[in-house]
Amino acid sequence: MNLKEIGEFGFIERIRRKCSPDTGGAVLGIGDDCAVIPYDDQSCLLITTDLLIEHIHFLVDKISFRTLGRKALAVNLSDIAAMGGKPQYAFLSLAIPQQTQLDSLDRLIDGFTEMADAFHVTLLGGDTTSCRRDLGISVTVTGTMPCNQVLYRSGAKIGDAILVSGPLGGSVAGLHILLQNLPLENYPELIAAHNDPEPEVRLGRAVAESRLASAMIDLSDGVASDLGHICAESGVGAEVYAAAVPVHGCAASLARETGSDALSWALYGGEDYRLLLTAPQECVDSLLNIGRCLERELTVIGTIRSGNEVVLHRDQSEQIITGKGFNHFKGQ
Amino acid sequence: MNLKEIGEFGFIERIRRKCSPDTGGAVLGIGDDCAVIPYDDQSCLLITTDLLIEHIHFLVDKISFRTLGRKALAVNLSDIAAMGGKPQYAFLSLAIPQQTQLDSLDRLIDGFTEMADAFHVTLLGGDTTSCRRDLGISVTVTGTMPCNQVLYRSGAKIGDAILVSGPLGGSVAGLHILLQNLPLENYPELIAAHNDPEPEVRLGRAVAESRLASAMIDLSDGVASDLGHICAESGVGAEVYAAAVPVHGCAASLARETGSDALSWALYGGEDYRLLLTAPQECVDSLLNIGRCLERELTVIGTIRSGNEVVLHRDQSEQIITGKGFNHFKGQ
Repeated sequence: MNLKEIGEFGFIERIRRKCSPDTGGAVLGIGDDCAVIPYDDQSCLLITTDLLIEHIHFLVDKISFRTLGRKALAVNLSDIAAMGGKPQYAFLSLAIPQQTQLDSLDRLIDGFTEMADAFHVTLLGGDTTSCRRDLGISVTVTGTMPCNQVLYRSGAKIGDAILVSGPLGGSVAGLHILLQNLPLENYPELIAAHNDPEPEVRLGRAVAESRLASAMIDLSDGVASDLGHICAESGVGAEVYAAAVPVHGCAASLARETGSDALSWALYGGEDYRLLLTAPQECVDSLLNIGRCLERELTVIGTIRSGNEVVLHRDQSEQIITGKGFNHFKGQ
Repeated sequence: MNLKEIGEFGFIERIRRKCSPDTGGAVLGIGDDCAVIPYDDQSCLLITTDLLIEHIHFLVDKISFRTLGRKALAVNLSDIAAMGGKPQYAFLSLAIPQQTQLDSLDRLIDGFTEMADAFHVTLLGGDTTSCRRDLGISVTVTGTMPCNQVLYRSGAKIGDAILVSGPLGGSVAGLHILLQNLPLENYPELIAAHNDPEPEVRLGRAVAESRLASAMIDLSDGVASDLGHICAESGVGAEVYAAAVPVHGCAASLARETGSDALSWALYGGEDYRLLLTAPQECVDSLLNIGRCLERELTVIGTIRSGNEVVLHRDQSEQIITGKGFNHFKGQ
C-alpha cells in the first residue's frame, strides 16, 4: 500500500489511529478544521495550520507574491471561520529557495500583514530557512470563541437543511484559466476567486453566535468531499439537489465557452473557501436573514439523510458523490 | 541587498519592523523562543513553530525516519523549555515527496508520537500535502506556565552569571562525522547528540519555577549567536571564559584526532539544544543544586557586562564573537 492509494485523508486517519484517544484536555483533536482547547471557564482556543507548497498549491508565475501572502493567511482564517471563531494570532514559517529576491519576500510579507490587519490578526512569530527549490509557506493561526458556540463537523442531524454561502466553482474555474493560459482579462472575478479568496470570518462568527446551525465546515476541497467529512463525523448521509447549487455566474459563462461542466466545478472543485453548514429546517429562514444582513447569500442545497453517502439528484437521476474532490497525493 | 547578505535574523528583523508594535494582547511576539499569550489570570500560553527541510536540516541517508520524527518534535520542545514552560499540544505538517514510502512516514510518525508521549504532549492536528522534492516538516507546539515565571531573553542584567546546561559541541561534532563519512561506531554519543537531542524540558521548568534566573534561551545556533540574542534583547554585553566552557568529551577526542578545534564547535556549533541562562551571582549555587537534583550539570561560563558585544577570553587574548554561528541562508 502506498500514499497515492490511501490519499491525504487515509494518511491522516492512519496518524489518528496511532494517537491515544486521550486528547490531553482538548475538546477536539485531529478531525475538524481546528483543534479546540479550553481557554478559561467560558472561552475556547482554536488552532489551525496549513501548508502551501510551490508547484502543488501555487505557481509563482500565476500569482503575485503580495496576493500569495494574502492567500496563505486567508486559507487559515477560513478554518477559524469554519468553527465560528474570531481569529487572533498568526505564525508564518517560510522555506525560501536560494534564488528568491528579497523584494518578492517583502511583498509576500506585505500581503500577509495586509490580510492580518483586515481581520485584526497579529503576526506573533514563525521560522525562516532556506531550501533547494519550491517555496514553502506554513501558517498557524489561533482564534477564540465561547465554548458553547463552537460548530463542529459532527453535529449534523437527520432532516437538517444543508446551506452554502456564496457562489461555488469560481476558484477552480479561475485555476482552469491560469493553467490553460486563457486571457486573464476576460474573467478577473474568477482569477480573484482562485488567487485572492475572502475568508468568511464575519459570517462564520455570526452563524456561531446565533446558535442556529448544527455543523459547519469550509469548502476547501469541494462540496462532495467536505460535505462527506460532515457526514462521516456526524454518522449521517446527505442529499444534494443539483438545480439548487449556486454556480458562480462567471464560471457558468466560462464553462459554456469552453465546453466544461460548471456544476462539476461547483461540486468537486476545491478552494472556494465558502462555508457549508447544516441546521434544523425551522432555523433556515433566520440563517438566510443573518446572511442577508452581512451581504452574504446563503442557499439551501440539500438535506441530511440517514445512511453514510452523499447522493446527488440531477435530472431525475441519482449519483453517489461521497469523497469526490481534490486529493493532493493523486491529483484531480 | 539580498537574503544572503541580511541573513535569517536580518530577515526576521525586517518582518518585525513591518508589524505593528501592538501585539494584540500578547505579552510577547516576534523576538524570543516562543510567543507568550495570556491564558487566564495566572497562566500564559506559549506557542512556537519550527521548520525542518530535507537537505538543509537533515539528509535522509544520515538519520532514520523514526529519529527524524523524534527530532522534529524535540527542537520545538526545546523552545518551550527555553521559556521554562510545560509543553502540552503539538501540530505536525508534512510536505511529502511523491516517491516517499508509506512505511518511512509511519516510522516518522512513530518517532514523533514516541517523543510526544515521553513529554506528555498530545498531537492535535496538522496538514499533509505532496511536494516535488525535499521532505518538509513544520511543527507547532503549545505550552503553558504561570505568567510570573516566564523567562525571556530580555531579562539579563549587568553582573549576572552566565550558565549553560551540559556539554557543548557534541551535535556539530556528530554532524562532522556524518558529513565526512567517518566511522559511525566510534562515537555513537556524538551521532545521538546531533540526530536525537533530548530537550531540556524538566530543567527549564525547574529553573523557571525557582525564579532564580533572569533570562534563558536554548542553544540552537551556538553560544556566540544565542548569547548574542540575549545581549541584544537585554541591552547588555557579555564576557565568556574559554577555559570554563564545558566541551563535550567525545567532541574533544574527535577534534584531537581530526585536527579540529573543539572549543569552536562548542561556541559556534548549532543544535546542542542545551539551555543558556543568566542569573544574579547570589543565585548561582542554588541553580547548580537544581541542576544536580535533575542530574543535569550546569556550568558558569561567563558574566554579563555593559556594552553590546560578546567577548571571548582565551589564552590571555580577547576576541569579539557576537553573532558568530550558523546562518541557514549563508551556510556555516
